[in-house]
Amino acid sequence: MVAPQLAAVVSKLQTLSTSDHASVVSMNIFVALLCACIVIGHLLEENRWMNESITALVIGLCTGVIILLTSRGKSSHLLVFSEDLFFIYLLPPIIFNAGFQVKKKQFFHNFITIMLFGAVGTLISCTIISLGVIQFFKEMDIGSLDIGDYLAIGAIFAATDSVCTLQVLNQDETPLLYSLVFGEGVVNDATSVVLFNAIQSFDLTNINPRIALEFIGSFFYLFLTSTFLGVIVGLVSAYIIKTLYFGRHSTDREFALMLLMAYLSYILAELFYLSGILTVFFCGIVMSHYTWHNVTESSRVTTKHAFATMSFVAETFIFLYVGMDALDIEKWRFVSDSPGTSVAVSSVLLALLMAGRAAFVFPLSFLSNLAKKSASEKISFRQQIIIWWAGLMRGAVSMALAYNQFTRLGHTQLRANAIMITSTITIVLFSTVVFGIMTKPLIRFLLPHSKVTTSMLSDPSTPKSVTVPLLGSGQDSFEDGLGGIPRPSSIRALLTTPTHTVHHYWRKFDNAFMRPVFGGRGFVPFVPGSPTERSEHNEPQWQ
Amino acid sequence: MVAPQLAAVVSKLQTLSTSDHASVVSMNIFVALLCACIVIGHLLEENRWMNESITALVIGLCTGVIILLTSRGKSSHLLVFSEDLFFIYLLPPIIFNAGFQVKKKQFFHNFITIMLFGAVGTLISCTIISLGVIQFFKEMDIGSLDIGDYLAIGAIFAATDSVCTLQVLNQDETPLLYSLVFGEGVVNDATSVVLFNAIQSFDLTNINPRIALEFIGSFFYLFLTSTFLGVIVGLVSAYIIKTLYFGRHSTDREFALMLLMAYLSYILAELFYLSGILTVFFCGIVMSHYTWHNVTESSRVTTKHAFATMSFVAETFIFLYVGMDALDIEKWRFVSDSPGTSVAVSSVLLALLMAGRAAFVFPLSFLSNLAKKSASEKISFRQQIIIWWAGLMRGAVSMALAYNQFTRLGHTQLRANAIMITSTITIVLFSTVVFGIMTKPLIRFLLPHSKVTTSMLSDPSTPKSVTVPLLGSGQDSFEDGLGGIPRPSSIRALLTTPTHTVHHYWRKFDNAFMRPVFGGRGFVPFVPGSPTERSEHNEPQWQ
Repeated sequence: MVAPQLAAVVSKLQTLSTSDHASVVSMNIFVALLCACIVIGHLLEENRWMNESITALVIGLCTGVIILLTSRGKSSHLLVFSEDLFFIYLLPPIIFNAGFQVKKKQFFHNFITIMLFGAVGTLISCTIISLGVIQFFKEMDIGSLDIGDYLAIGAIFAATDSVCTLQVLNQDETPLLYSLVFGEGVVNDATSVVLFNAIQSFDLTNINPRIALEFIGSFFYLFLTSTFLGVIVGLVSAYIIKTLYFGRHSTDREFALMLLMAYLSYILAELFYLSGILTVFFCGIVMSHYTWHNVTESSRVTTKHAFATMSFVAETFIFLYVGMDALDIEKWRFVSDSPGTSVAVSSVLLALLMAGRAAFVFPLSFLSNLAKKSASEKISFRQQIIIWWAGLMRGAVSMALAYNQFTRLGHTQLRANAIMITSTITIVLFSTVVFGIMTKPLIRFLLPHSKVTTSMLSDPSTPKSVTVPLLGSGQDSFEDGLGGIPRPSSIRALLTTPTHTVHHYWRKFDNAFMRPVFGGRGFVPFVPGSPTERSEHNEPQWQ
Repeated sequence: MVAPQLAAVVSKLQTLSTSDHASVVSMNIFVALLCACIVIGHLLEENRWMNESITALVIGLCTGVIILLTSRGKSSHLLVFSEDLFFIYLLPPIIFNAGFQVKKKQFFHNFITIMLFGAVGTLISCTIISLGVIQFFKEMDIGSLDIGDYLAIGAIFAATDSVCTLQVLNQDETPLLYSLVFGEGVVNDATSVVLFNAIQSFDLTNINPRIALEFIGSFFYLFLTSTFLGVIVGLVSAYIIKTLYFGRHSTDREFALMLLMAYLSYILAELFYLSGILTVFFCGIVMSHYTWHNVTESSRVTTKHAFATMSFVAETFIFLYVGMDALDIEKWRFVSDSPGTSVAVSSVLLALLMAGRAAFVFPLSFLSNLAKKSASEKISFRQQIIIWWAGLMRGAVSMALAYNQFTRLGHTQLRANAIMITSTITIVLFSTVVFGIMTKPLIRFLLPHSKVTTSMLSDPSTPKSVTVPLLGSGQDSFEDGLGGIPRPSSIRALLTTPTHTVHHYWRKFDNAFMRPVFGGRGFVPFVPGSPTERSEHNEPQWQ
């Protein structure tokens, strides 16, 4: 008699869990798959073809197939791809961590090139894809798409996948390439989202030069205000933590405050209709420059690794999610009666995407090289090929934008919209898996010795630059080198490139005005009983 | 002309954010308030009356008042209290962290007492409150409540607030009290949730001894299986991390895996209709005993602080949330025409709650003292008063259960249900603020020198026990003391108390069978280039 009653008890327990038991099952499978991705990703680490994005994507696809088979073709997904989930929970930790961990010297050194690639390049890419789509799609049997849709397609496929880029390139092995491709990725994310929103909101039936100007004006307004907001929030966090110094037992408070303020910067940007991606990226940079130096040593270790972990989990989550969602049977139903069209559309888009990227990488690299005086600072042709290639992957931003454009107003039933959604999925999967797998071998083929890359970018006459990659992980050589008395080599460097001069003045300004207020490297707060701090964090406070 | 067009662009940007802008505003205010709670909580740290729960609750209430005034009485909350949010996202990190940071020696040393208080005590408390409510409510003009409601009220108000307890007592100053009150809190959480579900599902019209036996049977089944599941998941995590040792650069993977497996234990318990609270608590204990020792040093620092921070943020979130929700005007509308009844109901419940707790703390302490042979191990009368007092606070678990009982089936319109909801809110606010404020002074009054407490619990003849509080934060003295060759004092301790004998065999078993498989303290994995690890984590890998 106990058994049935027990069953009655346990069957009622679910009223306290989520509304239905099916979602608990989904969550369990999903979390277990995330664990599997980490373990399998680690086991395949030495594999020269795979990386963790691809592993997660493949695991997601396999799970999709299994669910499809067990549910007898009814459904393939545990969770439906949701833009909100992506933009509110998954993207912010990734972009914040990118800003927090980015090598600031490389980033600001190549700032103009990055902006050229990220902003101008994205515009060029978007234009070429849009024009190409208008040209080719007319001859295909797709369905009704208006000018807004064509331009939106341009913006959707101009959005590179900075998450995948992070995994393909190595910051220590190829710092110049990493900073260029990744920096471009962040600016590109922001540009394509801004562009996409502008396309959705502007009246595109009558395009004239004034609207184009307004377009550019609104882009610069968004870029500058978003950056400014991120910097302000970062500085406020540095100031708060420096002023109310929390003492040596308050790692939890310091970490919580950094975490919450970082997230606040993102949602504040959303509140003011700015680009949250840019804001949280610059907030990360400012936090790593000031706030991070104001906290205790255990907080530094914790924040560094915890932010990286959050970003890592979010990345794995996205790829797993996209992989599982790709087999959603509903979307493919429309396409199944004309597989030829779908393949043709995907192929055309893929070709345009490659052409669109080539159309700005090589010309803009040429322009950028013109401005550089020393041969070593120029971007070699082989490096240009890698930059072009590494930016070909499309990911969750493209997916989210495509869902936004082609499923709003309940238009998924339309043939053209269904084709565009499936084509986006095809391109995301194909580019991530195929291009992703080929990137590592390509880099090894084009730049056989990674050490060559690091010495290529540094002028042999300036020893400081040569030491940068060596000191990279441990020492903030960039500040040591320029912050104190300039060494003879640094003086010569100042004369050769204007970037160094800007950098020199920034450093003087930073030391004179910013650091006294906001702390930063070298800030030593009053710590009661400080000598115990170092030994104490080795053991937690339990028995 | 730019301005209106710009406005058009920016007004469309929200399509990419959450569905409506109001929720972005709410999130901004909420995150900003969380930051404010941390800062203000820190500033008030030295204040002998306040603690962080009360600060968050008061800030929440004040915000509620401001929102009520600005919206001219329409609404007071930014977010509506959601059980799902609480049970799925907020409670797991708090309980996991509690298990992860708990002093295992104290916890297992007092295991029988904790189980007595947590399980038997909760049953006694529930019975007394239920009987009292049946007695008193008959004479009041409340409305229709059936026997199931009365029993549910007993379960709702038998759930102590372990979160608040954690903040009121100090693990280092009063370890015995902390482990008793907190350990009881965890078992109590589980017991009252199990009890509540049993009440909702059992047919209560005909109570007979067999149903009572089934009740007890299902409770033990849930307790044992939940614990077992938590231990298994913890051991699996230890085994995985020990086997595929991730190497010294993989703090992110190790942390991600621990985080995900901990959460997996909670949702697995939900999947099997077990008590997620118990499961995640024991998973935390096992992870701190095995898994935590298998990871790199920076992972240890990161996990220790990151789990604590997550718990801290979740706690602050809950109190802020409850504070803001308390002023929800809808709920008070029904009560406003009969404020006398509402006050009377709250007072009766509060009195029953205090009587119910007194009815088990003192008798069970007496029983527990009978079993202890040495006078120093007994719970003194003053300590009993503190145990009684510290468990009087009611918190989010009570709120969640009350919402579950009195708002399901759309019965919020009923007068009795509205009164019960508002009474629950009143009691949660009153007990947290008033009892919470008075706890610190009470402990200081009853136990003037905290050092007295720590020496009280240790037998002067066993030097090991005396050193426990001193070594508490840095050394795992419990394992050092019993793991190796037993010192003479330990042998004597083995003869005096049976707990020590159990402990001794557990340690032998742990060393012989568990540690070779699952790692744990002293496990030294092969680390390529290990000496650089310590120096490296001081500086992150940026320039």
